[in-house]
Amino acid sequence: MSSLYASRMGTIPKSFVREILKVTQDAEVISFAGGLPNPRFFPVREIAEAAAAVLTRADASALQYGTTEGYAPLREWVAQRYRDTEGLDVTADEILITNGSQQGLDLIGKAFINRHDDIAIERPGYLGAIQAFAVYEPQFHAVPLGADGVDLGRLADVLRTHSVRFFHTVINFQNPSGISYGAETRRRLAQLLAEYEMLVIEDDPYKELRFEGVRRNSMRHWLRERAVLLGSFSKIVAPGLRLGWVCARREIMDRLVIAKQASDLHSNSFCQRMLHQYLVSHDIDEHIETIRTAYKRQKDALLAALEVHFPAETTFTRPEGGMFIWATLPERLSALELFERAVQEKVVFVPGTPFFVDGGGTHNLRLNFSNADENKIEEGIARLGRIVKELLSR
Amino acid sequence: MSSLYASRMGTIPKSFVREILKVTQDAEVISFAGGLPNPRFFPVREIAEAAAAVLTRADASALQYGTTEGYAPLREWVAQRYRDTEGLDVTADEILITNGSQQGLDLIGKAFINRHDDIAIERPGYLGAIQAFAVYEPQFHAVPLGADGVDLGRLADVLRTHSVRFFHTVINFQNPSGISYGAETRRRLAQLLAEYEMLVIEDDPYKELRFEGVRRNSMRHWLRERAVLLGSFSKIVAPGLRLGWVCARREIMDRLVIAKQASDLHSNSFCQRMLHQYLVSHDIDEHIETIRTAYKRQKDALLAALEVHFPAETTFTRPEGGMFIWATLPERLSALELFERAVQEKVVFVPGTPFFVDGGGTHNLRLNFSNADENKIEEGIARLGRIVKELLSR
Repeated sequence: MSSLYASRMGTIPKSFVREILKVTQDAEVISFAGGLPNPRFFPVREIAEAAAAVLTRADASALQYGTTEGYAPLREWVAQRYRDTEGLDVTADEILITNGSQQGLDLIGKAFINRHDDIAIERPGYLGAIQAFAVYEPQFHAVPLGADGVDLGRLADVLRTHSVRFFHTVINFQNPSGISYGAETRRRLAQLLAEYEMLVIEDDPYKELRFEGVRRNSMRHWLRERAVLLGSFSKIVAPGLRLGWVCARREIMDRLVIAKQASDLHSNSFCQRMLHQYLVSHDIDEHIETIRTAYKRQKDALLAALEVHFPAETTFTRPEGGMFIWATLPERLSALELFERAVQEKVVFVPGTPFFVDGGGTHNLRLNFSNADENKIEEGIARLGRIVKELLSR
Repeated sequence: MSSLYASRMGTIPKSFVREILKVTQDAEVISFAGGLPNPRFFPVREIAEAAAAVLTRADASALQYGTTEGYAPLREWVAQRYRDTEGLDVTADEILITNGSQQGLDLIGKAFINRHDDIAIERPGYLGAIQAFAVYEPQFHAVPLGADGVDLGRLADVLRTHSVRFFHTVINFQNPSGISYGAETRRRLAQLLAEYEMLVIEDDPYKELRFEGVRRNSMRHWLRERAVLLGSFSKIVAPGLRLGWVCARREIMDRLVIAKQASDLHSNSFCQRMLHQYLVSHDIDEHIETIRTAYKRQKDALLAALEVHFPAETTFTRPEGGMFIWATLPERLSALELFERAVQEKVVFVPGTPFFVDGGGTHNLRLNFSNADENKIEEGIARLGRIVKELLSR
């Protein structure tokens, strides 16, 4: 019955990451593969208290259908945080609550991509975005990332030669590369994009996880209504709640709301209230600081282990935040071959290829440092380093 | 910037129902408009206990990312219920947990509809399905409903003359008409569909709300892997949890899982566990019986009020379950005109037109009986009847 399926079903890449997750149910496996937050920092007790508080009010509205836009006080909380922490003039009616930022990407695909439309992404690019957009069958233009952000010359070439709907960027601590855009790159990117009738999709789930360097301006600072921002509670509270948001000016918001209505009516009423209750009755900044401190230590442990156990020709990024390091192996080593051997030794990572829509990444590893303690990190990288050396000595 | 939007954004009808909901925040308004369950029956205390129980186990996995397919014990519960209550040989690996059945419809659109593909729906049709499918820009073929189900002759004509991907049906207590398919119609529908390389999407959110008549076979009974079933916890537990499911054979399931991954990774981990905890620690059949008994009384009150307050030429359906009655006004009365007058008198319903993709429904009303007590129903229909008579006497 395969003729019954829509053509798009042939173009969505299956998530290598989520497939790997199935393999790693084994507790002995050390995983650098997923993008899982460290569950040690989930506020389990506080969430339980928030759930009880919401349901004790017992007006039943927490369990009823809600508005598509989301729970108004939670939208206000998000807007207020943009004002407080980034100095952006965001109002609550510019916030749409979504099922994690993954749904934000899907809604943007729904609202903006016709089949064969041109869109620009980063190279390597965020796999969740590639999957979400692939559903709508665009023509991807993957523009290389340098140490300081996207290659502006290459992006300018794409914009000049194609009618690009939007550029999707994970501007802070990118997934998979760990790279953040520098201040000057941001300013010049904004200048470039302003020349075209297009949007920038600023996908920023990790922004609160900065443990080094200084916060830099959002594209919205310069591009105003041309910037659509995506955010998530997955990294600062818990991903299992599936709550994130899109921040966009009203005209775009109207379209996203229609798309969300058609997708699932609205996000979980109960969890939106519970999350809001948690946020207003606890010091979220203190909580985020705890996570940040731990992740910095875990990142440092991973970098230190790479220095010790990997051959000197290996290069890797040194992220200022987030959850990922991107390593580049010597050319004669295949990341996929390394992966296959590593699984046998009970250590996993994500090989680079799925992050490239046009081939590439064959010598790259995405290494997650958020979901393992420092001892495990040292042990896992030591195992991986032994295999690398063994493969190199063939 | 309207040229930036995808062409599909011009084709999705905005939900009249959800727009009306915004108007009806006023507590004095009597609403027959929404499809809201009566919140009196939401198991608020029991859900609070279930939340506490899930979080007390405190293994944090309830707050972590989960598998796209859904929480395994909840999938097993759904499969078991198909086996117990319908005698269908469903297994847990055929169940995908979704954000209400609305997301099931979206995933089916993603997986099966190419632009301009032919699909068959009922006339009048379920608005949520029309919205979800419209995103993928199909050619809709709306086939009239009779008192006993879809007009099989007309459906046969459509199937013979077009290459139809699927037929979408709300087989029990249809939304908006309240009609259920008879036993003989089901058998003959299955025979007809079996002649074609196509699917049937059996959208069955109300099936547990039967208060009269006898349960009849699902299309899966005859069509096996050609039948994709949609279900929901919204009507039997609470809609605010946004949990429903798709039931489909493995090959289709594989595609739906890819579509779900790209849409939002997975449904809320915490609420899936909480719901499962609630289901296994309470007598859900007793709970459903309470709802059924109340809805039957509410349905009877609505029918009785219509008999008393509406002119004799008005006709209406007499549903055996579900949440809606479909009324047909005398030809010279416009439902939209009635609606505008009714809003002033603080009573609302849904005029028939949004349920027709090809025009029609101008003299029809969809009347919901699940979300108002009997006194309110009598009062609301009395108000509406006065306006009808007033308009008729012009």
